[in-house]
Amino acid sequence: MVVGGDAAGMSAASQARRMKGPDELEIIAFERGHFASYSACGIPYWVGGDVSDRDELIARTPEEHRERGIDLRMRTEVTALDVAGGRVRARDLESGAEEWTSYDKLVIATGARPIRPPLPGIDAPGVHGVQTLDDGQALLDTLARTSGRRAVVVGAGYIGVEMAEALINRGYEVTVVNRGKEPMSTLDPDMGRLVHEAMEGLGITMVNDAEVTKVLTGEDGRVRAVATEDAEYPADVVVLGIGVRPETTLAQAAGLPLGDHEGLLTDQAMRVRGYENIWAGGDCVEVLDLVSGRERHIALGTHANKHGQVIGANAGGGYATFPGVVGTAVSKVCDLEIARTGLREKDARRAGLQFEKVTIESTSRAGYYPGAAPMTVKMLAERRTGRLLGVQIVGREGAGKRVDIAAVALTAGMTVDQLTALDLGYAPPFSPVWDPVQVAARKAVGAVFGKR
Amino acid sequence: MVVGGDAAGMSAASQARRMKGPDELEIIAFERGHFASYSACGIPYWVGGDVSDRDELIARTPEEHRERGIDLRMRTEVTALDVAGGRVRARDLESGAEEWTSYDKLVIATGARPIRPPLPGIDAPGVHGVQTLDDGQALLDTLARTSGRRAVVVGAGYIGVEMAEALINRGYEVTVVNRGKEPMSTLDPDMGRLVHEAMEGLGITMVNDAEVTKVLTGEDGRVRAVATEDAEYPADVVVLGIGVRPETTLAQAAGLPLGDHEGLLTDQAMRVRGYENIWAGGDCVEVLDLVSGRERHIALGTHANKHGQVIGANAGGGYATFPGVVGTAVSKVCDLEIARTGLREKDARRAGLQFEKVTIESTSRAGYYPGAAPMTVKMLAERRTGRLLGVQIVGREGAGKRVDIAAVALTAGMTVDQLTALDLGYAPPFSPVWDPVQVAARKAVGAVFGKR
Repeated sequence: MVVGGDAAGMSAASQARRMKGPDELEIIAFERGHFASYSACGIPYWVGGDVSDRDELIARTPEEHRERGIDLRMRTEVTALDVAGGRVRARDLESGAEEWTSYDKLVIATGARPIRPPLPGIDAPGVHGVQTLDDGQALLDTLARTSGRRAVVVGAGYIGVEMAEALINRGYEVTVVNRGKEPMSTLDPDMGRLVHEAMEGLGITMVNDAEVTKVLTGEDGRVRAVATEDAEYPADVVVLGIGVRPETTLAQAAGLPLGDHEGLLTDQAMRVRGYENIWAGGDCVEVLDLVSGRERHIALGTHANKHGQVIGANAGGGYATFPGVVGTAVSKVCDLEIARTGLREKDARRAGLQFEKVTIESTSRAGYYPGAAPMTVKMLAERRTGRLLGVQIVGREGAGKRVDIAAVALTAGMTVDQLTALDLGYAPPFSPVWDPVQVAARKAVGAVFGKR
Repeated sequence: MVVGGDAAGMSAASQARRMKGPDELEIIAFERGHFASYSACGIPYWVGGDVSDRDELIARTPEEHRERGIDLRMRTEVTALDVAGGRVRARDLESGAEEWTSYDKLVIATGARPIRPPLPGIDAPGVHGVQTLDDGQALLDTLARTSGRRAVVVGAGYIGVEMAEALINRGYEVTVVNRGKEPMSTLDPDMGRLVHEAMEGLGITMVNDAEVTKVLTGEDGRVRAVATEDAEYPADVVVLGIGVRPETTLAQAAGLPLGDHEGLLTDQAMRVRGYENIWAGGDCVEVLDLVSGRERHIALGTHANKHGQVIGANAGGGYATFPGVVGTAVSKVCDLEIARTGLREKDARRAGLQFEKVTIESTSRAGYYPGAAPMTVKMLAERRTGRLLGVQIVGREGAGKRVDIAAVALTAGMTVDQLTALDLGYAPPFSPVWDPVQVAARKAVGAVFGKR
């Protein structure tokens, strides 16, 4: 039995079905929304118009799941978990009918819920989250109905900057109101500053160090502005991109183990700690950060899919594990690419690690090759050992996915010295003769060890 | 004392100078050509017109080296190494004068020479190699003088396909005559086939399984065609891209140790085996392949630069090593990207390794995101252990540099199971939710281990 029909839940169901046919394993999945198995990460691009049709975001329709022998029940919300009794209570949201259904094996994939601060006016028409396809549709409906062209995005993390791009692409005047010192708090502020400058270059008004205090409404009850302590920002539409929390209300009520970030705690087989027959994955769990050794909450489709596959294999009688993450993320605002992996300065300090930091400028291709675009790479390496701790990259085309080099190196526990010796793909249209990540590594070697 | 003034030699000289000032270390470098410290890898793009000016390929001029206290002697060819006497004999190619100069420490960076089969007509005007900037200039002079528009490229490795692109860009009718079954013999033939098809799609005539038997000349003595056993291919210009061999004539005469590929053999500090005060690097050495455990010869600027840096650090009294390569290479023909790392099927067999092989199709971005381009990934994994052995990628924009993921994983000795769990950069504009390399890894896990 699967609770939650998006990436983690339906990947688990599909993988379990690959392991065992319908004669061996019955699979029931509950999804409270109108959609299952969709790419939530694609919503900003649908809103922005890069993706023209909502259905393109749907990896597999409910009918397709059912054809594969998965009893997917849409618009059905699980309202209670009875772990001792091995059953869940679910409500048909159309009819209102509730019933208990028993399980032998349970998969919790309840996802995350957007943070929605309890501010005056936050529920006014015109204020939108963008967590689900339903949310995306509601926002697009508002955009279609609204003649005004002023948009305020609250929050400047991945969702915030992606939504800023989407609204720019739709022709809006966009203001981003951000609590932090710089946008992209998943980067150190010196790297976030580069994002800030690029966003302003794109015509986005960036307001940092600003906490939203209320949402102001007009006579029609619709949003008309967003207020901070210091100022008011007129808005015909407001998008909330403040972040998400694990949706673990049911799990908590059932007494399942939660971590510091309110996410479910699992073992490496994605089994809920202490429970033989309950697994959890996706945005509702915490994951081990392999660099810091701490649990983190990261809501990201790629992890959810991996969790689902691991859960499905294990629940289907096989064996697979999810060892953890290194905190890799990549995003873009128009043609600016933003990537990070591993620890920021404050993460490293929090983990008790001493480190050296270096920042270098390089280019995506050989300097003489057409289209060589500048990029900035920041690297953290542990003091004395030279172990790689983290990399942040801001640049243009070809910058973002270079973070994968560092992501694999972090997973392998490589030192910056080892990084300098890596045999990476080189040809003038693809890289300078020293890849930018290795230029940073060379400088980091110097910072840690001094002259060779 | 440095013999050879391109990537390895001048990187060594520069790094040694960083370690020790002119008061502590005298540095003399001999270069027989007209240019030093240039990007030989950039020559096809200069010939093709992507790079407009030869000087853009020059990383540092002789004057700049001299300003840094390096006594770089251009157009000076070393004609003998006297290892026992600690001296080299060099000839000033302008005056013809020869003299012996003593050294305390010697760096051999004599590069590679293009393979030039002893065929009738091979030295005719209009037949060009593209190994050095001088070669590139000579080819461009020929192109400027020649009114005919038919070009034949002999060889379909990196240089061959890059030169085919360059000549297509110059408006030539291009025929590539290739000894192998498919172009890009650094790939398995099934992947080379994809390159073949794409080249034909670009209007390049691809002749495989064909050995050139002679070069035919006209009454003016210039090239007029290339002949194979079966056919003649009219040519106004011929470019040889058959490959290179280590230039180790001097080293061999001096009794230095050479490997099976005629390259110098060194230790990990790039010291010539058995010699305390002689280092060698760049295209004239053999390198350890970390996957097969065998020595290989790979002529590639990125290795030469790394060797030079390691040599300069060691010769300058510091410490650095070059542990080896995994055989990563990336190239392109117009918008087709071609990459490989690790072992091909025949390499694995030669190394005594049993393996499973898988091939998958995926896309560079989320399928629904604009510009998502198809790519094919082939992966080899060791039987029983699942250790990654090699990856080959052919695709469009965004395909080539993905090979770095596999290059780092190979270096770290990861299994394909570990690959599936890697935390790689994901967002719809950058990757499907499973990176194509991980899609291949999942299939490889199945091939090695069966159902999970």
